[in-house]
Amino acid sequence: MSVIQKGDKVAIVDEKGKRCLLVIDGSKKKVKGFGILDTGNFIGMEYGRKISIGNKHAWILKPSSYDRWGSIKRKAQIILPKDASTIIVNCSIVPGSVVVEGGIGSGSLTIIMAQIVAPNGKIISYEKRKDFLEFARENILNAGVERFVEIKERDITKGIDEKEVDAVVLDIPNPWNVIDHAWNSLKVGGYFCSYTPLTSQVEKTVKELRKRKFIEIRTVENIQREIVVLEKGVRPSFQMLGHTGYLTFARKVLD
Amino acid sequence: MSVIQKGDKVAIVDEKGKRCLLVIDGSKKKVKGFGILDTGNFIGMEYGRKISIGNKHAWILKPSSYDRWGSIKRKAQIILPKDASTIIVNCSIVPGSVVVEGGIGSGSLTIIMAQIVAPNGKIISYEKRKDFLEFARENILNAGVERFVEIKERDITKGIDEKEVDAVVLDIPNPWNVIDHAWNSLKVGGYFCSYTPLTSQVEKTVKELRKRKFIEIRTVENIQREIVVLEKGVRPSFQMLGHTGYLTFARKVLD
Amino acid sequence: MSVIQKGDKVAIVDEKGKRCLLVIDGSKKKVKGFGILDTGNFIGMEYGRKISIGNKHAWILKPSSYDRWGSIKRKAQIILPKDASTIIVNCSIVPGSVVVEGGIGSGSLTIIMAQIVAPNGKIISYEKRKDFLEFARENILNAGVERFVEIKERDITKGIDEKEVDAVVLDIPNPWNVIDHAWNSLKVGGYFCSYTPLTSQVEKTVKELRKRKFIEIRTVENIQREIVVLEKGVRPSFQMLGHTGYLTFARKVLD
Amino acid sequence: MSVIQKGDKVAIVDEKGKRCLLVIDGSKKKVKGFGILDTGNFIGMEYGRKISIGNKHAWILKPSSYDRWGSIKRKAQIILPKDASTIIVNCSIVPGSVVVEGGIGSGSLTIIMAQIVAPNGKIISYEKRKDFLEFARENILNAGVERFVEIKERDITKGIDEKEVDAVVLDIPNPWNVIDHAWNSLKVGGYFCSYTPLTSQVEKTVKELRKRKFIEIRTVENIQREIVVLEKGVRPSFQMLGHTGYLTFARKVLD
Repeated sequence: MSVIQKGDKVAIVDEKGKRCLLVIDGSKKKVKGFGILDTGNFIGMEYGRKISIGNKHAWILKPSSYDRWGSIKRKAQIILPKDASTIIVNCSIVPGSVVVEGGIGSGSLTIIMAQIVAPNGKIISYEKRKDFLEFARENILNAGVERFVEIKERDITKGIDEKEVDAVVLDIPNPWNVIDHAWNSLKVGGYFCSYTPLTSQVEKTVKELRKRKFIEIRTVENIQREIVVLEKGVRPSFQMLGHTGYLTFARKVLD
Repeated sequence: MSVIQKGDKVAIVDEKGKRCLLVIDGSKKKVKGFGILDTGNFIGMEYGRKISIGNKHAWILKPSSYDRWGSIKRKAQIILPKDASTIIVNCSIVPGSVVVEGGIGSGSLTIIMAQIVAPNGKIISYEKRKDFLEFARENILNAGVERFVEIKERDITKGIDEKEVDAVVLDIPNPWNVIDHAWNSLKVGGYFCSYTPLTSQVEKTVKELRKRKFIEIRTVENIQREIVVLEKGVRPSFQMLGHTGYLTFARKVLD
Repeated sequence: MSVIQKGDKVAIVDEKGKRCLLVIDGSKKKVKGFGILDTGNFIGMEYGRKISIGNKHAWILKPSSYDRWGSIKRKAQIILPKDASTIIVNCSIVPGSVVVEGGIGSGSLTIIMAQIVAPNGKIISYEKRKDFLEFARENILNAGVERFVEIKERDITKGIDEKEVDAVVLDIPNPWNVIDHAWNSLKVGGYFCSYTPLTSQVEKTVKELRKRKFIEIRTVENIQREIVVLEKGVRPSFQMLGHTGYLTFARKVLD
Repeated sequence: MSVIQKGDKVAIVDEKGKRCLLVIDGSKKKVKGFGILDTGNFIGMEYGRKISIGNKHAWILKPSSYDRWGSIKRKAQIILPKDASTIIVNCSIVPGSVVVEGGIGSGSLTIIMAQIVAPNGKIISYEKRKDFLEFARENILNAGVERFVEIKERDITKGIDEKEVDAVVLDIPNPWNVIDHAWNSLKVGGYFCSYTPLTSQVEKTVKELRKRKFIEIRTVENIQREIVVLEKGVRPSFQMLGHTGYLTFARKVLD
């Protein structure tokens, strides 16, 4: 039996899948979407128990990787798990990997990748906009993955400091401007990845990659459908996100 | 500069994305799809160089996670990266996770997950069919991830030995028969996942999950489209895999 | 040059694709979504001209088939053009066809089909619910296709009067209950079609069809993506309807 | 009871959905995919009966619209029913419509549209390549829809003769070169449609349309999934066509 202690960081997940992370310090806290939570009430309670918040139910859990991702605040479009997971597996990101990220956004992808490369790997994230950087830093601190992340206030199109990295992952409008920097920064066999919403961006990126020493150049789009189980049967959900971005992958070689 | 040494295990990747893993022991080897490869010729060569095999080109690389997966031999339908990656992120599988797998198939998912949980985590895979088990073991040994995998010749519908595991992932025709075992085996907040091709399997699994102490029950289908860049523009590929399987997720709670 | 005359029925289409049908009788009319329209102002105007309604633009056109469909009032889920068009072509519905429809809904499919079978064909629509029937009749009258439609306040699962019809098209929850009636009503080579949202409905319908004298039994799902052209490039729309219904087709034979 | 007479044109459809059209003249005919068929044997037989051809079954039917389409010979990529049907409904093509087609291909779309506009409408098809034109003409004659089709050996980018047409439908690589001709040829409220595989073609077409007097400019992509019913349940087919073409629609106005 595992019991909530003062000082624990917990995840609270409600019936609709809304979640937040919370430090149990005994104080009352106002959490957006959850109202006022008296953390003192949770001390001594078993993890996994159902609680009532206003007129809805929620559960207190030890934070999982997905909880840490799902608790971020969002600014603009974020990279979703369906795309983040494809980046991880297609770029061979594993424990110990060193990944350079261009364009931190809200830190969504950073947080997912950081938990995969931990404890010995690292995400080095370049972001030229201070507002994004500060916003993402908040999310990264809240997720508790700051040890595995280094943030640089820099325009990645101007260059990458690191060498022999395992992957360069870009969520910027002009990834073609980073291809040469990426090649120089990557180890042999390392992975380039760009996430772009437009087909014109895919075209320009792929054509530039083909001119250089990259192999395994390919682009995919992930469409994820939610499936609904009703009393009388099963169907895809009527709600669906029509598009997020195209993922272009490539791999550095010497000739 | 990194040079191929005698005793190295290398990946060879050709222009079409076909790949194999190879131990450089100085001997000639016959590899399906590549013909005869004289590994002696590769000693002293730099990683990342292009070689000619018959009338096609290939590159020699240090094996990546994706290379280890992509070199497996296939028997029946395997779980593809698009689904494996979703399982990893949605089940919060990270370095150190302990995962019980039901139905090892060709070991495809096992190999991808093993490289994420390494070095301190483990995949414990239940498989009742000896032929599958032996076939998968070959692939796992070839991928070099055997330290992170334990294979049991057992029918997972009969029970799970392990306790407090982080996730139970099932690729069997009747996952509903493992729901109680999974709940008993999972830690609080741990994840259940089943991969099933039919909507009737989704329906039965979800309805049984709803009767028990699980939250965050949801089912998704991943559709992945390959995007083709031609001289004149971009379009989705005409070739496409129409369906693989539905992924159902749930999470253990106490009430 | 074609000029609007008193007594004309016109279509008004705004910038967002919202549309209505309107009789030009010289009076002022209140139209939902358009405000007050003074039809007197339109007399003598050329068709195709842009007009201002409040602070938005619209165009006056002779009603097309699509305008007649797009001007209906909606009650519950309607069959969309993507599915209606597939029904027409897969059921070989052409000018002169006689089609029995089960479940009129809002009359959406009825109106599209009626304009294809006109002037010598007919849609005979069975609807057991008087409220739906009255609602659909309003839409059909407004569309001006009433000459090609016969509405029966009847439960189609109880039987079909017509013989030698070209197609029986069903939008009801239990199409399997109409399969025998459909076979009796269809001409040899005639088409059965059912529209159902759930896979369990597809399964039951197809299994029943297979027990009887039907060939070319198949089920399809149409997914339609809207493509957005921006200044910088092209992408699928973020908005998308995740699911409507499955279309099951079959064709009557003698053995 | 309807009996096959000498001189009838019949459709033969086999278990796999393969079909052909055949004139019953009493002679033996060699039909690709069916072997030798002795049409004399069919005289006096009832329509709808099952026959054996070699070791497979087939049925003799009066040709439907779909049979006439499905019996064409294919040269290069054809427009499929899923796209043809969307063109018909989105362009408001109905009995009596006059449609100009640019690029006849194998005549696939021509044959489907011809059966909708019959008996008083017409498809006027421009094709600059004599080989395509001859190939399509064969298919059109075989389908028996030649009365509703006029074929012109002309490059539609050079101009369109017809005026006040209901729709201009293009299956050519450079539809933007026909936009001005289409506007001149269309009646007010008439429809422009182009079918193009590449997003760059969509972009160029839409941007040119926006510069001119067109409204309701939109582009859609149809994805059709086949659903398979097995003894144990339902799933989408593993086989799937990944892409055909994008459909861009627009409508002529005066300002």
